[in-house]
Amino acid sequence: MKIIKGGICAVEGVLAAGSCENDYGVAVIVCEKSTASAVFTSNKVVAAPVIITKEAVKDGKLSAIVANSGNANCFTGNKGLENGRSMAYKVAYKLKLNVKDVAVSSTGVIGRELPMNIINNLIDNTVDNLENSIQASANAAKAIMTTDTFSKEFAIETKLKNGKKIRIGGICKGSGMIAPNMGTMLAFITTDINATSQELENALKKAVNSTFNMVVVDGDESTNDTVVIMANGKSNTSIDENFQEALEYVCSKLAKMLAKDGEGATKYMEVEVKGTSTNKDAQNAAKAVVSSSLVKTALFGADLNWGRIVAAVGYSGIEMDEKIISISLKSKKHSVKIVELGVVNAFEGTQELLDAENIMKEKDIKIIINIGLGNCKATAYGCDLSYDYIKINAEYTT
Amino acid sequence: MKIIKGGICAVEGVLAAGSCENDYGVAVIVCEKSTASAVFTSNKVVAAPVIITKEAVKDGKLSAIVANSGNANCFTGNKGLENGRSMAYKVAYKLKLNVKDVAVSSTGVIGRELPMNIINNLIDNTVDNLENSIQASANAAKAIMTTDTFSKEFAIETKLKNGKKIRIGGICKGSGMIAPNMGTMLAFITTDINATSQELENALKKAVNSTFNMVVVDGDESTNDTVVIMANGKSNTSIDENFQEALEYVCSKLAKMLAKDGEGATKYMEVEVKGTSTNKDAQNAAKAVVSSSLVKTALFGADLNWGRIVAAVGYSGIEMDEKIISISLKSKKHSVKIVELGVVNAFEGTQELLDAENIMKEKDIKIIINIGLGNCKATAYGCDLSYDYIKINAEYTT
Repeated sequence: MKIIKGGICAVEGVLAAGSCENDYGVAVIVCEKSTASAVFTSNKVVAAPVIITKEAVKDGKLSAIVANSGNANCFTGNKGLENGRSMAYKVAYKLKLNVKDVAVSSTGVIGRELPMNIINNLIDNTVDNLENSIQASANAAKAIMTTDTFSKEFAIETKLKNGKKIRIGGICKGSGMIAPNMGTMLAFITTDINATSQELENALKKAVNSTFNMVVVDGDESTNDTVVIMANGKSNTSIDENFQEALEYVCSKLAKMLAKDGEGATKYMEVEVKGTSTNKDAQNAAKAVVSSSLVKTALFGADLNWGRIVAAVGYSGIEMDEKIISISLKSKKHSVKIVELGVVNAFEGTQELLDAENIMKEKDIKIIINIGLGNCKATAYGCDLSYDYIKINAEYTT
Repeated sequence: MKIIKGGICAVEGVLAAGSCENDYGVAVIVCEKSTASAVFTSNKVVAAPVIITKEAVKDGKLSAIVANSGNANCFTGNKGLENGRSMAYKVAYKLKLNVKDVAVSSTGVIGRELPMNIINNLIDNTVDNLENSIQASANAAKAIMTTDTFSKEFAIETKLKNGKKIRIGGICKGSGMIAPNMGTMLAFITTDINATSQELENALKKAVNSTFNMVVVDGDESTNDTVVIMANGKSNTSIDENFQEALEYVCSKLAKMLAKDGEGATKYMEVEVKGTSTNKDAQNAAKAVVSSSLVKTALFGADLNWGRIVAAVGYSGIEMDEKIISISLKSKKHSVKIVELGVVNAFEGTQELLDAENIMKEKDIKIIINIGLGNCKATAYGCDLSYDYIKINAEYTT
């Protein structure tokens, strides 16, 4: 597997562009005659663009995506559906595509009508600049940002088992309201694999489950989350296990970027839970720890209050026995076991305590929890909870 | 129902005392020969005092409670059980009580051994000062505080249906790590009702479910939560519906104090969800809104980002239809319907928007959500998320 440049445009035949005006941005991605699949928010309040894209992708085909930032077009009734459909129509008309093959995504404030004059101008400008280039993917990634502090793209090239090379590229956005099941995050993935929409759906669901769905920033889940994959078949080779592995790798890289860019984040945290009897238990415990406000503030304050980790595992509801639990902290340089089989190693006066305190001061911290009961494991991705999270969210719409 | 002074000591025959030394405090409550019941944390990591008190209350009888703050005596293995039991033994020995009738509670840092020299001194001092007085209840309430900014007590006198008067008094602590199912909160309730332990258990479970279990500060759940009720029977009158109502009133008053004293809280929030088809749906939606970091930061910033309320209801998983939802905001002085049957009232240029923005600036805010599907309802209690929450929790153990 080779990391390459170009994001979504690393894939042959993909065109992209993005433009911004004040608080609004529009990105357009064209990947003509693709098979496609998508995963959406499980929030019962569903934004208009989610409804439109669900319809569009139902037949397993897409040719383009138009996405805007600055307004979620959610809780906007029939007017919202009308506005979302007109975005798809405008792109389809300009590019001579079937409007049924254009997906729509929106992210931003909930409950306000889309300013269609601004959005229409941005769509015109964006479509006029479509191209296949590194810059084009970067512009698209930038146009969908809201409170993100950096744009997020990633691409790889890998060999399938038959020796043929395929590529996968992706862009995504999201930094607050990211929770189990993808709070306000949008991700668009392109590939040149030759796959049926059913094959893509299986591959995407599996990949999203262990990556995007394991990112927690604040526990809120958005009304607009969407992950779309489009496969244009230009590699002339079919899906296999190597493709699955590569897709999960791309999704995990994008997911980690989301966690690192959590609103106000000063530190990145990975929580690996292993030794559970079920995968679900490992996922639930890892998410509970990564979501805990007390663990997150301890991380921010570089305060080794590891009891909060134990407490979070305890209330996650998983099968466990505190007498056989082990907990390690790891940074890029150091590693220390603070609890081993239920016994505390890192107490007053030990080297373990000093080491653990030093790890807590670093920027990139991994917490490894061994439940000691089985062979299942899962990893969750998150960040600390800082003063800036509150600053960003206390002043968002004003 | 009449509000009276004296907290737990408002009840005849109850003795109390509390003393503090540096970061530690000890409270002792004596309510001899009581029937008793208790509700505990559902966290799978359970502190030693919870294990001890579960054993003590198993026969439905208690005579005293000894509680300490500053150390949770949790994740402390056999040594923790030994230390907790020695606290009960010391109180029993000094007061000539059966050690099986003494409950133990602890709150504070997890994973550190209890400093028994300090705790023993505090127990000696506290037991020597036991009395039935307004000051004694106040001292006990103060001794169990951790990051609480004010001590919490409440008492009432009410007439039962047979015309006889009974009293109920309570003290409690807790301000962070308060979540669904009572994160780090301790509450001790005394009453002169004459009840079997089974009657007390039914009454307490019902009352806790709609009060303490509906308080959310940060979503973390503690390893030490305990609510104990002791009934000494001195009123010579049996339990009836009026007692249940009075008990729920006392618990709701104490629960609101917990929410108002949420760590770093600058504002108090009540969320009432009505019109659901089940009670569970009403509880889940109310808790989702009151727990949402985005709603909490919007409250802190006086930012009318009501879309976050809709989103939280949506991800709570309840049965709902966004087309018939209504949302009102209420303060002590004002009230405004911002969404009515799925249609936004409070948009740019309306009086409703100005009114709603003004309510958001107040200190005491009620959010009322009508789902419009049924006749069930529930209320959750919470607070905003401020810079101080992070300050308090980023520097807790250091």
